[in-house]
Amino acid sequence: MKKKRVSLYNFWRELALLTQENIGFATLDHGREIRKGFPEVVFGEGKTLAQLEKIIPRLWSRSGKILITRLDGVIALALQKRHPKLKWNPTARCLHFPARPEIQYRRGQILVLAAGTVDLPVAEEAALTAALLGCRVKILADMGVAGLSRLLARLPELQRATVIIAAAGMEAALPGVVAGLVKKPVIALPTSVGYGTGAKGYAALLATLNSCSPGLLSVNIDNGFGAGYAAAQIIWAVNGVK
Amino acid sequence: MKKKRVSLYNFWRELALLTQENIGFATLDHGREIRKGFPEVVFGEGKTLAQLEKIIPRLWSRSGKILITRLDGVIALALQKRHPKLKWNPTARCLHFPARPEIQYRRGQILVLAAGTVDLPVAEEAALTAALLGCRVKILADMGVAGLSRLLARLPELQRATVIIAAAGMEAALPGVVAGLVKKPVIALPTSVGYGTGAKGYAALLATLNSCSPGLLSVNIDNGFGAGYAAAQIIWAVNGVK
Amino acid sequence: MKKKRVSLYNFWRELALLTQENIGFATLDHGREIRKGFPEVVFGEGKTLAQLEKIIPRLWSRSGKILITRLDGVIALALQKRHPKLKWNPTARCLHFPARPEIQYRRGQILVLAAGTVDLPVAEEAALTAALLGCRVKILADMGVAGLSRLLARLPELQRATVIIAAAGMEAALPGVVAGLVKKPVIALPTSVGYGTGAKGYAALLATLNSCSPGLLSVNIDNGFGAGYAAAQIIWAVNGVK
Amino acid sequence: MKKKRVSLYNFWRELALLTQENIGFATLDHGREIRKGFPEVVFGEGKTLAQLEKIIPRLWSRSGKILITRLDGVIALALQKRHPKLKWNPTARCLHFPARPEIQYRRGQILVLAAGTVDLPVAEEAALTAALLGCRVKILADMGVAGLSRLLARLPELQRATVIIAAAGMEAALPGVVAGLVKKPVIALPTSVGYGTGAKGYAALLATLNSCSPGLLSVNIDNGFGAGYAAAQIIWAVNGVK
Amino acid sequence: MKKKRVSLYNFWRELALLTQENIGFATLDHGREIRKGFPEVVFGEGKTLAQLEKIIPRLWSRSGKILITRLDGVIALALQKRHPKLKWNPTARCLHFPARPEIQYRRGQILVLAAGTVDLPVAEEAALTAALLGCRVKILADMGVAGLSRLLARLPELQRATVIIAAAGMEAALPGVVAGLVKKPVIALPTSVGYGTGAKGYAALLATLNSCSPGLLSVNIDNGFGAGYAAAQIIWAVNGVK
Amino acid sequence: MKKKRVSLYNFWRELALLTQENIGFATLDHGREIRKGFPEVVFGEGKTLAQLEKIIPRLWSRSGKILITRLDGVIALALQKRHPKLKWNPTARCLHFPARPEIQYRRGQILVLAAGTVDLPVAEEAALTAALLGCRVKILADMGVAGLSRLLARLPELQRATVIIAAAGMEAALPGVVAGLVKKPVIALPTSVGYGTGAKGYAALLATLNSCSPGLLSVNIDNGFGAGYAAAQIIWAVNGVK
Amino acid sequence: MKKKRVSLYNFWRELALLTQENIGFATLDHGREIRKGFPEVVFGEGKTLAQLEKIIPRLWSRSGKILITRLDGVIALALQKRHPKLKWNPTARCLHFPARPEIQYRRGQILVLAAGTVDLPVAEEAALTAALLGCRVKILADMGVAGLSRLLARLPELQRATVIIAAAGMEAALPGVVAGLVKKPVIALPTSVGYGTGAKGYAALLATLNSCSPGLLSVNIDNGFGAGYAAAQIIWAVNGVK
Amino acid sequence: MKKKRVSLYNFWRELALLTQENIGFATLDHGREIRKGFPEVVFGEGKTLAQLEKIIPRLWSRSGKILITRLDGVIALALQKRHPKLKWNPTARCLHFPARPEIQYRRGQILVLAAGTVDLPVAEEAALTAALLGCRVKILADMGVAGLSRLLARLPELQRATVIIAAAGMEAALPGVVAGLVKKPVIALPTSVGYGTGAKGYAALLATLNSCSPGLLSVNIDNGFGAGYAAAQIIWAVNGVK
Repeated sequence: MKKKRVSLYNFWRELALLTQENIGFATLDHGREIRKGFPEVVFGEGKTLAQLEKIIPRLWSRSGKILITRLDGVIALALQKRHPKLKWNPTARCLHFPARPEIQYRRGQILVLAAGTVDLPVAEEAALTAALLGCRVKILADMGVAGLSRLLARLPELQRATVIIAAAGMEAALPGVVAGLVKKPVIALPTSVGYGTGAKGYAALLATLNSCSPGLLSVNIDNGFGAGYAAAQIIWAVNGVK
Repeated sequence: MKKKRVSLYNFWRELALLTQENIGFATLDHGREIRKGFPEVVFGEGKTLAQLEKIIPRLWSRSGKILITRLDGVIALALQKRHPKLKWNPTARCLHFPARPEIQYRRGQILVLAAGTVDLPVAEEAALTAALLGCRVKILADMGVAGLSRLLARLPELQRATVIIAAAGMEAALPGVVAGLVKKPVIALPTSVGYGTGAKGYAALLATLNSCSPGLLSVNIDNGFGAGYAAAQIIWAVNGVK
Repeated sequence: MKKKRVSLYNFWRELALLTQENIGFATLDHGREIRKGFPEVVFGEGKTLAQLEKIIPRLWSRSGKILITRLDGVIALALQKRHPKLKWNPTARCLHFPARPEIQYRRGQILVLAAGTVDLPVAEEAALTAALLGCRVKILADMGVAGLSRLLARLPELQRATVIIAAAGMEAALPGVVAGLVKKPVIALPTSVGYGTGAKGYAALLATLNSCSPGLLSVNIDNGFGAGYAAAQIIWAVNGVK
Repeated sequence: MKKKRVSLYNFWRELALLTQENIGFATLDHGREIRKGFPEVVFGEGKTLAQLEKIIPRLWSRSGKILITRLDGVIALALQKRHPKLKWNPTARCLHFPARPEIQYRRGQILVLAAGTVDLPVAEEAALTAALLGCRVKILADMGVAGLSRLLARLPELQRATVIIAAAGMEAALPGVVAGLVKKPVIALPTSVGYGTGAKGYAALLATLNSCSPGLLSVNIDNGFGAGYAAAQIIWAVNGVK
Repeated sequence: MKKKRVSLYNFWRELALLTQENIGFATLDHGREIRKGFPEVVFGEGKTLAQLEKIIPRLWSRSGKILITRLDGVIALALQKRHPKLKWNPTARCLHFPARPEIQYRRGQILVLAAGTVDLPVAEEAALTAALLGCRVKILADMGVAGLSRLLARLPELQRATVIIAAAGMEAALPGVVAGLVKKPVIALPTSVGYGTGAKGYAALLATLNSCSPGLLSVNIDNGFGAGYAAAQIIWAVNGVK
Repeated sequence: MKKKRVSLYNFWRELALLTQENIGFATLDHGREIRKGFPEVVFGEGKTLAQLEKIIPRLWSRSGKILITRLDGVIALALQKRHPKLKWNPTARCLHFPARPEIQYRRGQILVLAAGTVDLPVAEEAALTAALLGCRVKILADMGVAGLSRLLARLPELQRATVIIAAAGMEAALPGVVAGLVKKPVIALPTSVGYGTGAKGYAALLATLNSCSPGLLSVNIDNGFGAGYAAAQIIWAVNGVK
Repeated sequence: MKKKRVSLYNFWRELALLTQENIGFATLDHGREIRKGFPEVVFGEGKTLAQLEKIIPRLWSRSGKILITRLDGVIALALQKRHPKLKWNPTARCLHFPARPEIQYRRGQILVLAAGTVDLPVAEEAALTAALLGCRVKILADMGVAGLSRLLARLPELQRATVIIAAAGMEAALPGVVAGLVKKPVIALPTSVGYGTGAKGYAALLATLNSCSPGLLSVNIDNGFGAGYAAAQIIWAVNGVK
Repeated sequence: MKKKRVSLYNFWRELALLTQENIGFATLDHGREIRKGFPEVVFGEGKTLAQLEKIIPRLWSRSGKILITRLDGVIALALQKRHPKLKWNPTARCLHFPARPEIQYRRGQILVLAAGTVDLPVAEEAALTAALLGCRVKILADMGVAGLSRLLARLPELQRATVIIAAAGMEAALPGVVAGLVKKPVIALPTSVGYGTGAKGYAALLATLNSCSPGLLSVNIDNGFGAGYAAAQIIWAVNGVK
């Protein structure tokens, strides 16, 4: 049996290598677009300008799409100078192409709520990610429960959405209140906004994980990219993507 | 302006009261089926037999459906004696009606993966919840990554599913590996299986929140009910439920 | 200067000793009623029946009032057998006298909200404490935000109260939502109701400490006694107690 | 029933929209003054100069009052240059108007104690907030229990106060000691002063939450604004504000 | 050089083996009395009756002294039946010999304070340990700061002591207040008395580690044995023990 | 390209299925012996007697070896009654076959040190695991650093070993001290022995992770099985196993 | 009774006020030298130059001694320019007078051990504090257990000391090993030296709190001042200070 | 007996002193090369340039090898200017000599896997350490499980290695997946790469400690040096080093 396995691995290996590209300090996974519906997204934090300058052309030439998240502004501007077609979104801290993504999936809409102005960067990262993945997205700011009437006034919009992302820091009551009002999938996006025991977003995350409203889903603190990606996957499911 | 608001509240209040029932120690929320698509689910932990005996007939008579989660076995059997139509699922620790839920939403299927045998109770709670919410559900056990070939052998089933729930304790690598293989919404369901630093499921939860696989969603540790509810809401979205 | 200080201490000491009673394993602080408005309340957890049997008559004979909190049911019934005038409240786990406290402070009212049925024990401990301290108290159950309309329907009652205590476990969104609706002092009473990351009440406590609603106050997890005492102190202030 | 609810929402929505103002990146809640007794207070941390420049005139024109907390000094001075009537309090890190708030509520007084010189900034934030809310406030510094005689010397002042705020870092014994001496509501304000296990204020917060002195209330670490607001709400209750 | 080292080890080894006794599941360290002034103290938790029955005669025959801490009551009574000279202290959960330890070190006295009745077991463990180590010890109960006058009345006793151990749970303000009043070494002994955030004694430990009172020393939560041992070592130093 | 991949999966799948056995609630991984050198080890905690009775014969018939760890004593005895050849080790809480494992790998020896008698169960689990994996193993008890001479006396044994496992609870200084004395791989095995801040073994784990002695390796708290397995893998490497 | 108490307070108050000095932002406690044997030590962190310039002359003029700990270098040099007699110790980050403290207490000696070079700053803070308090002090560097022979070579010095302070970061095995070798009081001084799970010193603190060596005492992480003060108090006790 | 011990210590002491060198602020342990197979490695973090300039020549002259880890770039360049033969590796943040270490141990090979580009610095520290210890080492980058095919394609390389180090941040699934595929010792090297709940590497560490794959070993977060040293010790064991 061992012999067979080895040759199967060789077979597998050659196939797998076809979708990989080794550029020394990194191994690009060009197969990801097939498996996951979008090319490899680059996590910008901690990568040097030199590394990103090598990665970008290779990813771009293969798939025609780029998304670099959590990027430092200085590095972003340097990259943009070289590649003027790349769009820099300073609020979301993302560098991307195309600059104005098209809506590919006509059925369904993603609604992104931000509890406060300071939650906007993360909310925009979510919205931009979903838009790049071909979905229709809308943002509503300042929906926190300290002024509950602001949220209740938007109930019709909540009910029209297919998926809702609710970004909130501090005690993050917003996602649970929203999930108690509608029967749509709601993705809580806890943010690191806060101080004292609320610093770094743990209070917000715990609130969303323990919500009494049934079916509330969570992502990591400040993970706008993940929330947007998950919302897009739900839209894909609604559009019958396999 | 104040006058108007007061009368609006009165209006709202009367309406809201129509959907509530006060039974002394509890206020039943009969409006939840309208808002959330399913009547109020009873959290069994910490409720006395006497309290549950009062709640059950009231909920049942209104909606014809019952789900009590995280219920103690002794209380469950006592309740079942009184209400023989209720089905007791000892693995999932749920008491429910109807005993064999019908599939109401034809489009889409939920696949529930359990990493190990000890993760089965939580996985079953998820599956039962989704089934009661009218969805088609299937469970696969022992899919943990310590034997990766077991999971890879099921890739076709993973690709046929509409939503995947992956229940895992200890280091919970399963949900992230699954989310790296398919472009469907994947809901991680961390369980409290483990010991030492893995006791109580925090290691499992952190693993799922920090997965590199884009778009992985999480619920609270052992929250099979929440994972099943969320998966059902995605199926509803796929079926065009408003 | 040292000489003076020593004699001052002697003076102080004799005075202090007048309000103390040494019963071997305990030093009773009979001065507390003067300083704090109520005799020493006994923390029942961890005390033996023998210890309590010695403490009770001494406290009772001095002040005519007794409150023992967090008491084991078996010990409570044994004590009640000896002192049949003591009232045992099994939900609040308190043994107390008088059985039916009188309202001493006419101005103002305390409203105690419980988010769910399982939060009732802690809410009752708060209500009972405040009642023994001479205040008017009312409890409302099942006010959790998963069914927001139940709470909104009670807005007039919220607005009539002088102080509000809001007991809630899990993600404890209730206290913050209440504090966003009214301009009364609101005391959050986080409870240990929950499981997974919500077990032991830390998620609930963090939610109340980080609420965006200005002016929300908190006590320790499950500290119904403290919440009730604080609310009574506010009622005393309203009644001009010095 | 659904039809009615929708029209009620429309009704509610229009009313709610009357008290809101959408300025793109924020939704101002002008109804807060009616509900909470003071216009929306701006959390300065994380807001850009551009955002604050848009928010200030809109809030000011409506209510004639402004409070921006936790503000960066550089941004504060830039704002002050444009709006010279705004007062910058560098210790409390607050920008506010009016510069010298009037006492509106004659009954009752708030006493703010700071355990050490380093706790003064947070104590001042509390005092300033309460003053802007119309209350009479006094600060006493360096009252920490390492020199207990300093506190005992102020007992008459403690007994004259209506509400006491006690700000302390490190082991924060002060609030509990104060609450053991008087029968007034005492609000513990833990500060992030400390190092080692005391860094960030968790030790201080735990001390105040676990105090044996009955009825001690807590706010989040460094939340001077919240402590001041809560104290003011108690003063309002004493003055019969509805 | 290697050769020399090996022979030195052989030398050392033979010497070390002289003070050790291998009884299969344990290696008794008879040299400890020489190094540390008292024979090996047995940590009772988790040891079986069979193991203890083997250890006791060997330790006893060598040194004539025995101390077993944190012992289960059932095992203690079984051991006492076999060795009737052993004294069982059920409060301190210690089994020991001699039953009434003699004072060996005449200079200096240890004062053990317990904040509440529930802190007595740990305080007694400390007092018993120090007494077995030959020191003069006195216990004072119910010295918690919620009734500060009780403590202040004892100032002369505090000033007469050579070392003070202050046992306290919950917010453990007592040790810091004591250390602020006297210039003697003060050993804080945090106990696991409390609930909510105070459960398990972490709040108490943090309070003692962060005390503003200079020179306060701490031991582990509930470590009465360690506090008593340390206090005895200070008394030994005062008596010139080398 | 997609077509190729699908057929590769089919190929892989069939192969993978050959080494799997689906028994309803579990999927046995018979390929593990090939990949990992030992058949699937059963984690006993949380498994029912019924589940284990189904798993045992299937695993046994395939590989002729069985190891069930962390097993409840009652279940163990029931299983042993059915399968009298299985050996029950009550200290290590393991049920296994063969009862007396043979030494398969002649080169190298594993030395297991236990700091105290209470660390023996975990140390025995490690030793038994390594023995079942074919290695030569020796245990030394009571090597804790409170009596450093006991350890130094064993230096020759430490230097003769190929790999050392050092099991210790509380402050776990033993593994670091050992790793500072020899140039062999040392595996720290932190145990949950302790109380207060040492309860559950976190203090022990942190000590081993932060040791200044270069090259110290750690496993999870109480993970004797993991330590034994890792030590065996090193012995395999020494014996040239591929 | 109330009348008496008030007049006692007046008495106390006047006396207490005699030893206090109010300088606006601070209340100096000149009575501390009488109570605690040394004038108030200034915690430098977070104090402004302006505040320190006001505090220094007042403290100095009264007691002739100054110690400012955890001081920023820039502020220190500015203060030194004004007060050239003050000595700045940049390693210990302390500003003090007298520059060369005299030995006042002849009996006994304090030995300060530092595990590594990076632990020296905290060790020096301890040594300087004890020296200013009149004690004889000696420092030994690089005594960490990774090279156990370095420590064992110093055994005679350990045995000559009256009190030992052992400063160590990372896994902090040194204090426990020392306490296992001698029968002197040993004060563990955990430092924040380390990274990963050792960052901020929690691993070090836990190690010292959980040491198996009986009688080990701990202070807060990096609290060199506290360790030195406590050691001095023990020396005072040895010298018969009351 | 005491006399003998003292003279033995004198003997030991003199011997120990022969291998030590006191340079004031440090005590160099020249005996470490004999005991541990490599001279003392310098932990660069927190050491000043002046300290390092004194340490380097002394260590170098004795052993001919140098390794300084976690060094600041500015200090490194200053040291290199003085000692141009030292090699500065900016990725691994190590300064070392020889610049190109020779392979001393011919049997066995270490394979270092990095999950992502951002894990490379820590992986290189591990590789460099092992190389300086005389071992053959190879690095493979970007092996994270989000693209599982990249790892599976390298299975032959995994199977050829003697020891594998797997560096990964975020949810760190890589080490467990690798350990499930091969029967070689696998050392998990969790990195501090991540954000939100993944910041600082705790999620990564917990994942590796709780892996279901039997025998996975862990080191501290970012401890590349420790992982490399441990891997080298295993290679030494394979090569029969005593």
